[in-house]
Amino acid sequence: MPDLTARVGLVGFGTVGTGVVRVLREHRSDIDERLGFPLVLKRIADIDLETDRGVPLDGIELGTSWEEVVEDPEIDLVVELVGGTGTAKDLVLAALGAGKRVVTANKALLAHHGDEVYAAAARDGTDIAFEAAVAGTIPVLRALREGLCADRIESLMGIVNGTCNYILCEMEEGSEPYPNCLKRAQDLGFAEADPTFDVSGMDSTHKLAILAGLGLGANVHPDDISTEGIEGVANLDIEFAREFGLRVKLLAIAKRREDGVEVRVHPTMIPGASVLAQVGGPMNAVQVRGEMSGPTLYYGAGAGSIPTASAVVADVMELARAKHLGVAGRVPPLGTPTLRDVPIVRSEDLEGEYYLRFSVLDRPGVLAAIAGALGERGISIASVVQPERHESRAVPVVIMTHRAREAALRKALEEIDQQGAVQDETRVIRIEREI
Amino acid sequence: MPDLTARVGLVGFGTVGTGVVRVLREHRSDIDERLGFPLVLKRIADIDLETDRGVPLDGIELGTSWEEVVEDPEIDLVVELVGGTGTAKDLVLAALGAGKRVVTANKALLAHHGDEVYAAAARDGTDIAFEAAVAGTIPVLRALREGLCADRIESLMGIVNGTCNYILCEMEEGSEPYPNCLKRAQDLGFAEADPTFDVSGMDSTHKLAILAGLGLGANVHPDDISTEGIEGVANLDIEFAREFGLRVKLLAIAKRREDGVEVRVHPTMIPGASVLAQVGGPMNAVQVRGEMSGPTLYYGAGAGSIPTASAVVADVMELARAKHLGVAGRVPPLGTPTLRDVPIVRSEDLEGEYYLRFSVLDRPGVLAAIAGALGERGISIASVVQPERHESRAVPVVIMTHRAREAALRKALEEIDQQGAVQDETRVIRIEREI
Repeated sequence: MPDLTARVGLVGFGTVGTGVVRVLREHRSDIDERLGFPLVLKRIADIDLETDRGVPLDGIELGTSWEEVVEDPEIDLVVELVGGTGTAKDLVLAALGAGKRVVTANKALLAHHGDEVYAAAARDGTDIAFEAAVAGTIPVLRALREGLCADRIESLMGIVNGTCNYILCEMEEGSEPYPNCLKRAQDLGFAEADPTFDVSGMDSTHKLAILAGLGLGANVHPDDISTEGIEGVANLDIEFAREFGLRVKLLAIAKRREDGVEVRVHPTMIPGASVLAQVGGPMNAVQVRGEMSGPTLYYGAGAGSIPTASAVVADVMELARAKHLGVAGRVPPLGTPTLRDVPIVRSEDLEGEYYLRFSVLDRPGVLAAIAGALGERGISIASVVQPERHESRAVPVVIMTHRAREAALRKALEEIDQQGAVQDETRVIRIEREI
Repeated sequence: MPDLTARVGLVGFGTVGTGVVRVLREHRSDIDERLGFPLVLKRIADIDLETDRGVPLDGIELGTSWEEVVEDPEIDLVVELVGGTGTAKDLVLAALGAGKRVVTANKALLAHHGDEVYAAAARDGTDIAFEAAVAGTIPVLRALREGLCADRIESLMGIVNGTCNYILCEMEEGSEPYPNCLKRAQDLGFAEADPTFDVSGMDSTHKLAILAGLGLGANVHPDDISTEGIEGVANLDIEFAREFGLRVKLLAIAKRREDGVEVRVHPTMIPGASVLAQVGGPMNAVQVRGEMSGPTLYYGAGAGSIPTASAVVADVMELARAKHLGVAGRVPPLGTPTLRDVPIVRSEDLEGEYYLRFSVLDRPGVLAAIAGALGERGISIASVVQPERHESRAVPVVIMTHRAREAALRKALEEIDQQGAVQDETRVIRIEREI
């Protein structure tokens, strides 16, 4: 009898790695039954072999060297959960070079070096899969790569960072300021001790670079993506949004345009009755609009040891099946063999509706001056809210615009600034109604 | 040079068939680029070749005989869009027998004869795919078959019939009665001239039989599924639901239990703030709860020529890739090689919360009698609403129960009926809070 067993080597035994061990152990009989052959975790490598992860490790060879995993001729599949773009990159390329199939959840690696990694997999006649790199357990990459492969995707809008979504939901529900809600997120394990990477929008930007490749077939580098985090969102903005039937979400947006692609990450006001607006707490969702399929949406847990691990193991099973059949490259990693180098539309060329919150001294003529500056730049006002009257101190004035070009808006805001009518930085939040 | 072209034969040139031709034509260059080889529609068979479908047919061989398609040695893939369980079954089995790969959108065929069809595909060393059979364009079957394959699914809840969802949403928004909303659905093409199959819940039942196989690995026949349509839902029920923060949706539900599986289709009250509750108009969504992945949700268009066709063509592309690589049976059609024959939990053994609307004469002691009968059977009351007082005619009394066994509830309702306190049939709607 030939040995049909597919053998897995895991590099990186942290939170998700521990989850992978648990999924493989606890669902082993189901997994083997579905595959029709045994899937075995043969080796684990991590620099820390001391910490007790609370999972049984009998029968698994432990080591501190990833090279041992990659060089083990019995290992068919390597799971990379080291993270970052240093060791992770070396080991992924070495594993592919050794003809192993690779599963990774490493969004930074793929966002920055995806082209090199995908090319290596094709050249080495093997496969790489990375469902868990974007939106955790949600099989949205599969949906884009295969489920929607007959369609042309027009846009993607995703809530792909659970930390930010949790904080914004907390700010909305409890009307507490950002720092308190961030603190709570940290206490509950939804935010890191240093939350910068998440709250600055950078994490979403990495994921968007991957999504834009899969969805639009566009070669997008994180540096191409205009990124704004949630640190500047005030409770006041959330409350005003609600008055207009809108909610504030951090969205990662990619849109196909005739002149290129739009790729941006920023707090966005969206219709409160939309499905995307209901995504609460640390959950994720990606809404895709296809020319033929129309809108589809994919919702679920964006992080967490076990949900993420279940996506990693699903990828392992997919590649184990390919190994079993002796084929590779069934579907290109991004659904298309080559990404197009398309122009990235500059922020100033974007067009949309805007929420503007000015902080003004409540004197006669201030609103007229603001409205005048906007009007001169061709920006028409959809509505104005000026809720309070305190002649002695700054009060908020909120203006919702009709569709306007961002360059014109920026010019107008600069002029308004120069007039000295505003007391504080003007808050600008984009509105997306067609989601 | 070997001929790498994959050739498709289409049987059934109706609404979706026409959509398939359009998708294949209009996205041809994208499709060929993604596949890396050409995909060509070679033949179409339909009994009606007279009607102008408004799509160019140059280069396609037209005929009225499905046998010509199945017997054409050049054809690699057969798309069955005839529908029903007669000719469709014959042609699918013949195509598989001839070693063709088959794509179908035929839920009735798979719900009733799936076991036979899947066995034929395995025996004949070929493949069958059917994403469009459930929830139209939404790639939820792929999600269950591959995206969540490392997990054990605990439950599925789907809005899988757009006609019913449209009617319920219209009843909610306009407060118009069922017949008016059905009429509007028919005028807009969201309901058939004879809507019975949809509004009775039967269409959802067919889809649930397929979903239960994919999600729970359970062998479920449509006859096993307790089915109730939307014909009996009154505007009053929708309004009372809203008072309790709930909305009424026709759900197809499958749950794994220790003693078997629950499979049922019925109007259901669900939390108004849930993502599933926001699914509006003719849209579909399926919420899946996995032991490890937690809740995930898949949303999109459940019907329509072009959205459904885009799912059909995605399946064609998947099977064309398998043909190109010379492999078959990569993943079993339902994600697992064999379905388990599990006990179907009887309706009377279900346990849940219930909404009860009694129609009573508003006399002293009536509520006490009802509450007494419920209490005697161990059914405890969560709240009571008795909004009107008209001593001369019947008024509604609404009772929301805590968790109760359905057998006990039915007994209690029988007794209440016999007491002569109720004037009309008591309306019972199940409540699902954990979605």
